[in-house]
Amino acid sequence: MNPMKYQFFNDYSEGAHPKILERLAASNLQQMTGYGNDEISLQAQALIQQAVGNPQAAVHFVSGGTQANLLCLASMLRPHESVIAPATGHINAHEAGAIEATGHKIETIQTNDGKLRASHLADLFKTPRDEHVTKPKATFISNASELGTIYSKAELQSLRDFCQQNDLYLYLDGARLGSAITAKDSDLNLADVAALTDMLYIGGTKNGALLGEAIVITNPALQSEFRWHIKQRGALLAKGRVVGAQFLELFTGDLYFELARHANKMAEHLAQELRELGFAFLTPPQSNQIFPILPEALIARLQQDYGFYVWAPAGDGLSAIRLVTSWATEEKAVEQFLKAARDSK
Amino acid sequence: MNPMKYQFFNDYSEGAHPKILERLAASNLQQMTGYGNDEISLQAQALIQQAVGNPQAAVHFVSGGTQANLLCLASMLRPHESVIAPATGHINAHEAGAIEATGHKIETIQTNDGKLRASHLADLFKTPRDEHVTKPKATFISNASELGTIYSKAELQSLRDFCQQNDLYLYLDGARLGSAITAKDSDLNLADVAALTDMLYIGGTKNGALLGEAIVITNPALQSEFRWHIKQRGALLAKGRVVGAQFLELFTGDLYFELARHANKMAEHLAQELRELGFAFLTPPQSNQIFPILPEALIARLQQDYGFYVWAPAGDGLSAIRLVTSWATEEKAVEQFLKAARDSK
Amino acid sequence: MNPMKYQFFNDYSEGAHPKILERLAASNLQQMTGYGNDEISLQAQALIQQAVGNPQAAVHFVSGGTQANLLCLASMLRPHESVIAPATGHINAHEAGAIEATGHKIETIQTNDGKLRASHLADLFKTPRDEHVTKPKATFISNASELGTIYSKAELQSLRDFCQQNDLYLYLDGARLGSAITAKDSDLNLADVAALTDMLYIGGTKNGALLGEAIVITNPALQSEFRWHIKQRGALLAKGRVVGAQFLELFTGDLYFELARHANKMAEHLAQELRELGFAFLTPPQSNQIFPILPEALIARLQQDYGFYVWAPAGDGLSAIRLVTSWATEEKAVEQFLKAARDSK
Amino acid sequence: MNPMKYQFFNDYSEGAHPKILERLAASNLQQMTGYGNDEISLQAQALIQQAVGNPQAAVHFVSGGTQANLLCLASMLRPHESVIAPATGHINAHEAGAIEATGHKIETIQTNDGKLRASHLADLFKTPRDEHVTKPKATFISNASELGTIYSKAELQSLRDFCQQNDLYLYLDGARLGSAITAKDSDLNLADVAALTDMLYIGGTKNGALLGEAIVITNPALQSEFRWHIKQRGALLAKGRVVGAQFLELFTGDLYFELARHANKMAEHLAQELRELGFAFLTPPQSNQIFPILPEALIARLQQDYGFYVWAPAGDGLSAIRLVTSWATEEKAVEQFLKAARDSK
Repeated sequence: MNPMKYQFFNDYSEGAHPKILERLAASNLQQMTGYGNDEISLQAQALIQQAVGNPQAAVHFVSGGTQANLLCLASMLRPHESVIAPATGHINAHEAGAIEATGHKIETIQTNDGKLRASHLADLFKTPRDEHVTKPKATFISNASELGTIYSKAELQSLRDFCQQNDLYLYLDGARLGSAITAKDSDLNLADVAALTDMLYIGGTKNGALLGEAIVITNPALQSEFRWHIKQRGALLAKGRVVGAQFLELFTGDLYFELARHANKMAEHLAQELRELGFAFLTPPQSNQIFPILPEALIARLQQDYGFYVWAPAGDGLSAIRLVTSWATEEKAVEQFLKAARDSK
Repeated sequence: MNPMKYQFFNDYSEGAHPKILERLAASNLQQMTGYGNDEISLQAQALIQQAVGNPQAAVHFVSGGTQANLLCLASMLRPHESVIAPATGHINAHEAGAIEATGHKIETIQTNDGKLRASHLADLFKTPRDEHVTKPKATFISNASELGTIYSKAELQSLRDFCQQNDLYLYLDGARLGSAITAKDSDLNLADVAALTDMLYIGGTKNGALLGEAIVITNPALQSEFRWHIKQRGALLAKGRVVGAQFLELFTGDLYFELARHANKMAEHLAQELRELGFAFLTPPQSNQIFPILPEALIARLQQDYGFYVWAPAGDGLSAIRLVTSWATEEKAVEQFLKAARDSK
Repeated sequence: MNPMKYQFFNDYSEGAHPKILERLAASNLQQMTGYGNDEISLQAQALIQQAVGNPQAAVHFVSGGTQANLLCLASMLRPHESVIAPATGHINAHEAGAIEATGHKIETIQTNDGKLRASHLADLFKTPRDEHVTKPKATFISNASELGTIYSKAELQSLRDFCQQNDLYLYLDGARLGSAITAKDSDLNLADVAALTDMLYIGGTKNGALLGEAIVITNPALQSEFRWHIKQRGALLAKGRVVGAQFLELFTGDLYFELARHANKMAEHLAQELRELGFAFLTPPQSNQIFPILPEALIARLQQDYGFYVWAPAGDGLSAIRLVTSWATEEKAVEQFLKAARDSK
Repeated sequence: MNPMKYQFFNDYSEGAHPKILERLAASNLQQMTGYGNDEISLQAQALIQQAVGNPQAAVHFVSGGTQANLLCLASMLRPHESVIAPATGHINAHEAGAIEATGHKIETIQTNDGKLRASHLADLFKTPRDEHVTKPKATFISNASELGTIYSKAELQSLRDFCQQNDLYLYLDGARLGSAITAKDSDLNLADVAALTDMLYIGGTKNGALLGEAIVITNPALQSEFRWHIKQRGALLAKGRVVGAQFLELFTGDLYFELARHANKMAEHLAQELRELGFAFLTPPQSNQIFPILPEALIARLQQDYGFYVWAPAGDGLSAIRLVTSWATEEKAVEQFLKAARDSK
């Protein structure tokens, strides 16, 4: 990465929010029990149970999102069962076959905006299944989706209803859940999301932590012996406190949401100004990932000073780019980027 | 864990060495490339290549030891191939079937002291194999072993020779490699260990890091596409710098070895004094894990003020206990423990 | 199945060709070595080596096609490697996740006629891959395809070239290879197919055997320790002679091809007459599976006396049906079916 | 195999009992539904339900024992669960890692005679388990065991009780169940065995069939979607009738037991005479596999005319050999073998 360029590649380019480092340092030399049974992790779990409004929810900390996805899904599937996901879903598109490596097929659905609807599932369930094909048992969604879009409460409720009627677990990848639920358009809060799914993870890595995700299991049938799955997949950290302390800081007070709101605010600002400059978007800009469609010449000029991905050609000399903001995105950098866009237009 | 008791349960009860936290903080807000391709991780890799005396070695950072073991071993085995390990080996005894979950059998060998010898392998290879049994393709050892013992250069060379003659990879779990090679009895250095194995990991978690292990691949045939394996097992950290920075600190100067030497010094002191008190040991005390055999009454009295595991009954009202020291073990605590032992004797 | 209806459901509705049963009976009480090392299996292997024009080819017998596919593909892939297949491919559409259960992703390509072309692969390879996605290492095709179409020599050569240039194995599912290479349009023989692929299986179950497929491995790099894979997947038959004897009969003289030619002749007759009646086809009728598009009223009338699958609606009150003929299909039944179609039109 | 030597290597050296071939031939050209849903298979299933005295038992046919073991056990285990087996158990000693390839650890227990007792399990359960080790969920036994010994009703009941009290499934490999329950010493019948286990298979391959095993699932919780598991492991035969017809013949009348009784009678005769000659046995001779301990010189002489395995050295110039009889073993051959033993003594 060219250090001269300010970058909008992703939301994990910086380390952790300073308060998180402070929290880690505060208890650093204190002796604690290993493997996540320490006091700090227990406190963090309790705060998350509160935040999701479910004191019976099981909470576990692991180090990354692919790890969370593979171990959560593998824990709930029998060998012949599959998971349904949008084709753009992280487990299908960016995890190097991690789910298949646990033995399970992903049944993919093409979508325009990265979101699954109950109608997609209904289509899939029209064809009766026998033993010559896999049996779908879980549905994977992410909120925000990989295309920056977010779910409404009605959409999530409707997925939930379909899943319950069809004996499917609903699993939510919340790598960017902070951004999703603090988005301007969102009518969901954390408790809603937890109540409408069977298992989910709340992303720390992309929302200010050094690393770490909090798995939340609300379906009691899926809670039993979950630590075995964590250990077996190599995800049980000896110093569990390292992730515990970070979530303790994020959920003591409002930090988790503050950080997400900042990322959203930066993205909204970018989106609004780009829209005013007359640019369209690949998907509705709703969270901290936006996909404006720009002339390729403009893209080339912006790339001289800024880092970002060119996502997909859009015809007529245009391409969609991906801009990602984060808790650490500097307002000044956003302004300069927009000025450069205006000047080069 | 009772905060009133000083504990010798393990070497991961504290957080990180303060210098490591400082290193993390120093570059915290700098934007860097993700997934371990950042400058800091690259520097740390270069330092480790130096430390192992092999500029062609591939170096990768992951978050934990079970994760390292499962992904390293799975990367080198075809479906019908197995790994040989001492029955006490971490992969067999403490990883919840992680290796089997990747599809491979562990062929175990009973040993007294946690160490495999070439003669063990030779015994196993006496019986010819056909397709009704698995085909051993890798040998797993750990240095220090799970019973605190360490390998001599001659022992490791002899294992290496057998492996090369019999088309076996030699893999070394170095969760406590720092302690092993800085042990008083050790005639091995890091370069020796790397030269005599095909793949190994250098443990950070148990030697002063918050978390993290450095996988070192010296066999060029095993280097290709290794990042795929890391990603697929959920071990590729978005903020790879988090582990990179810690190893950068550990291998800038002598910190890695200093920390290990401290742990050993504390263990040696415990061992020597307990021996002088007339106590025997389950295995020769060589590294930062020692297993003195004490009267059960004494154990009970010590447990009032100190945390440690009772390992195994030893007959005649005696039991072996496990005492683990670390970079953070306080000299004063060791003295007090010994005084308590003397007083209670 | 209604015994009153003659059926065109598939090519495995009858038992075995009578000569095959005779061959099984002939050596029935003779003592032989187990696990396929018997004389009869060795003779059958030699005949198949001859038939594929490659005395170095490895030949193994297993009991079914899904079994052959899963064990062959798993034997050639490392954990992070995937197999490319048409979406209609048997491994993707009809094997209950068998490939994924061995840990590997299938990367699917939409095709109209069940056939992969080199251009499909070229499209897939346009996007560069990194460790966030699987690495394609094998290509799966079937000849005849699941839609009854067959490959020309030029098409297969072109796939082969692409695969060799891109470090991909080419694997061919020959469940209906007899029908494919004896098809009127085919310019491929068995030796061509073997020479242009790395591994394939020659289908027995759908061409007159009680059960059994012959795996042929021409790529020497894929031959080693293959019996381990067979055993590990539960496919090594104690009485290997049971499949060996059947292939001995099929490849002593011309029986394998005779049976396939009969199936093709019946399918051609059906296709020609239905075409003359003015009906179109979903895919070009080339082998023993044909897909005529008929008015739904006619389908309903034919279903009163004949068994077959309705494959897919084709709009305007039409649907494609699947008619499958076999070595055992009676000419009289074909004539009666055609008469019924003519009369009902 | 030297055709000049009569062989006692195993019980699958011959083809099928002639009546079985006749049964296969009888319906050979009749069209039937595929995948085991044919009339013949349904009839055979009903006969087996009768034979096990449980009309609710699910019955499925597959082609071999390793296949049955791997798919049955994998169907009942979650990823972190293991199966307990005697070290000599077929899944541990002779299946090339088939169970581990489905992701599960086998926890082995050393036994002298191939049989597990409830006391073995009790020992294993003494140590409490946490998430650092696998969780045993199934117990594997075989009757007859791999060392020819058989279970008494009391022994099986006691295993069953322990399993039920400890939330373990009891699975029985019945490759040689015919021989076990028709053994002179046996107080178990087929209904007892089925009532005292959760799942088992009744072996056909080693008791007169060309190939084929009948899986019987008495625990209703384990019956659901079992055909998916069969298909996914490549074990669903297109012409399911091929195995169905063989079991139909075996369980119409008393053929299954007659064949087993013949094998036992031959083994008993061998055992009794060898005992009278003063030879000891490695394990009590109870079923169709016996392990007499003979002088090595005698073994060498017998090997000139007879095929059998030398099992294990027994000290003092003695070795245990394995003699296996079958439904097809000729009385004359047994007499000649015994004469040779007597003459050479």
